[in-house]
Amino acid sequence: MSDVRPARLALLRDQLARTDVDALLVSSLANIRYLTGFAGSSALLVVSARDCVLLTDFRYEAQVADEVGASAQVRIEPTSLWNGVWLLLPTLAGVERVGFESAHLIHRDFQRLLEQGSRWNWRPTSDLIEAQRMSKDPGEIANIVRAIEIAERALNSALPAIHAGLTETQAAGILELELRNAGSEAYPFASIVASGPRSALPHARAGDRRLTRGDFVLVDFGAVYNGYCSDITRTFVLGAASNEQRTIYDIVCEANARASGALRVGMTGIAADRVAREYIDALGFGEAFGHSLGHGIGLEVHEAPRLAKTAEAPLVRGAVVTIEPGIYKPGWGGVRIEDDVLLTADGPRVLTTFPRELRELS
Amino acid sequence: MSDVRPARLALLRDQLARTDVDALLVSSLANIRYLTGFAGSSALLVVSARDCVLLTDFRYEAQVADEVGASAQVRIEPTSLWNGVWLLLPTLAGVERVGFESAHLIHRDFQRLLEQGSRWNWRPTSDLIEAQRMSKDPGEIANIVRAIEIAERALNSALPAIHAGLTETQAAGILELELRNAGSEAYPFASIVASGPRSALPHARAGDRRLTRGDFVLVDFGAVYNGYCSDITRTFVLGAASNEQRTIYDIVCEANARASGALRVGMTGIAADRVAREYIDALGFGEAFGHSLGHGIGLEVHEAPRLAKTAEAPLVRGAVVTIEPGIYKPGWGGVRIEDDVLLTADGPRVLTTFPRELRELS
Repeated sequence: MSDVRPARLALLRDQLARTDVDALLVSSLANIRYLTGFAGSSALLVVSARDCVLLTDFRYEAQVADEVGASAQVRIEPTSLWNGVWLLLPTLAGVERVGFESAHLIHRDFQRLLEQGSRWNWRPTSDLIEAQRMSKDPGEIANIVRAIEIAERALNSALPAIHAGLTETQAAGILELELRNAGSEAYPFASIVASGPRSALPHARAGDRRLTRGDFVLVDFGAVYNGYCSDITRTFVLGAASNEQRTIYDIVCEANARASGALRVGMTGIAADRVAREYIDALGFGEAFGHSLGHGIGLEVHEAPRLAKTAEAPLVRGAVVTIEPGIYKPGWGGVRIEDDVLLTADGPRVLTTFPRELRELS
Repeated sequence: MSDVRPARLALLRDQLARTDVDALLVSSLANIRYLTGFAGSSALLVVSARDCVLLTDFRYEAQVADEVGASAQVRIEPTSLWNGVWLLLPTLAGVERVGFESAHLIHRDFQRLLEQGSRWNWRPTSDLIEAQRMSKDPGEIANIVRAIEIAERALNSALPAIHAGLTETQAAGILELELRNAGSEAYPFASIVASGPRSALPHARAGDRRLTRGDFVLVDFGAVYNGYCSDITRTFVLGAASNEQRTIYDIVCEANARASGALRVGMTGIAADRVAREYIDALGFGEAFGHSLGHGIGLEVHEAPRLAKTAEAPLVRGAVVTIEPGIYKPGWGGVRIEDDVLLTADGPRVLTTFPRELRELS
């Protein structure tokens, strides 16, 4: 695969020129990784028309050169990355107006800019790199597809070992072992295994409740490959499903299929969300679908675009989004079915292959 | 255990009065959990002399009441937590000067305060709740001790299954399965299993390198119990240790013991760090110990206090800190030995019980 980083940097520099800043201070680690390949947890990046300098600390000295290659000059800072910024900026010719990432700088560090950096003219910027990241290139799509394959292989391997009597936490452990065996680098978020009434908690995580026959078992998890995330939810029944369980399940499944199938380039996030919401609402469960339809995935498990009641931005070609409608009945249980979908010029391509039919675990 | 939250809130209110603010907008989720017990991932809290109001979203509607009890009034916000803030603040009598958490508010949200919240007088605050959190009460210590027990039980169970030929990622999966079996609610950070030359990377995580006889295998991981973290590192040798491996190991082990034993209430983080650093330095490896000695643990795996070259604050009674010296030789390997230590009025109490002697894995 050819190195995509120079093109990303060139695109960012075009944006900086249009934004009327001479340089950008990048503090989002995901954005730094996107531009340079650096995967560590401590870095700042300064991009100007001529320079691209990555500041990190001792702990990453041995790995940073391999990861970054020629995409940035690297400086290892012995004390604080901010010291490095104050040493670096005066050496960059013609840099007066410096952008910073408004969504990725805490107020305390913003105060540093105004105090130690008072000789520069600081300008808040929003989503300059995130907007680029929305549209995935073939290499990124391949990484996401691999992260999905890892997650699906893990779920397939784990399911035969999930049975009544295990705690949710133990079930999560079995799934996570299989994620590791399949090659997941990390967990993109705290795995959710939520059973019985707890499946009605949309962000339940895994707890010490024991799986019981008749339960819904909702599993929401993902894998990471080359830094790229997958995010999948399936809801099973432990034993034979009741009629009510089947009814709710089928509604969510149909809402998922309709929303996935309806995605188009140029459609707003609001319109996409509405496809699932109107269907669920028409069947009388609108109140029970209280969260948004989905979100972008990539280097972060939640990134642009959003598919939600308030998401006015049109969807772009190359976006990879989750489609995850759900119905939750407090005290009884809930169902969520979540796929990862690539938006191509020809329409949606559902990347998740794990079956969506209701599966009864023995 | 009696409810400690009213006392925490009372202490915070005393601080607010001394800080000359009428209310505090709390945006750190760990601080919100400390004050209210709410464990979700989306919340804002407003504390005034009279009121304590938690704002969260639909996804947490079912769990928030149980967790929060009487410690806060709860409002479920249908669209944005910030809308909730702008509806709430005008109803709080006598609130003009409102503090916010400078280290936990992104610039974009700070801009909201100045724009939508222009009728209030906003004041940055630092570490108001973090300072309280530094000194753990008996219930918190019990939770940390349990998180350490879970981690140690998991390591003991996992080690017999760790052998040459496994990838680091597979080894991490075995350890993580045992963490789940032992009851860990989550992973406080991405587990590190770093083998051979990769053990020289202080923040290596787990990769696809295969464990090989003669390797150092560095394992840095933790458990979570009731929201409280443990953080432990042990370094093993796969097979028989070489003389050089033993030499380096013994230096790190002695540095760990000296630093743990020297901790005292009132000592600065600088002085604590110096104990390990001077010992390692005197033996000629000062350059190879490039990170700090340690950090506090609690609801977060990295919290106050720091034990580092620049940490001027004196250590308080009830602090629980990691002591984690290391020596890293690029291309060859590295050793880190990390314990969790409680600082009592009578001196340090090392909470980690897992043996520190060099262990050769078969």
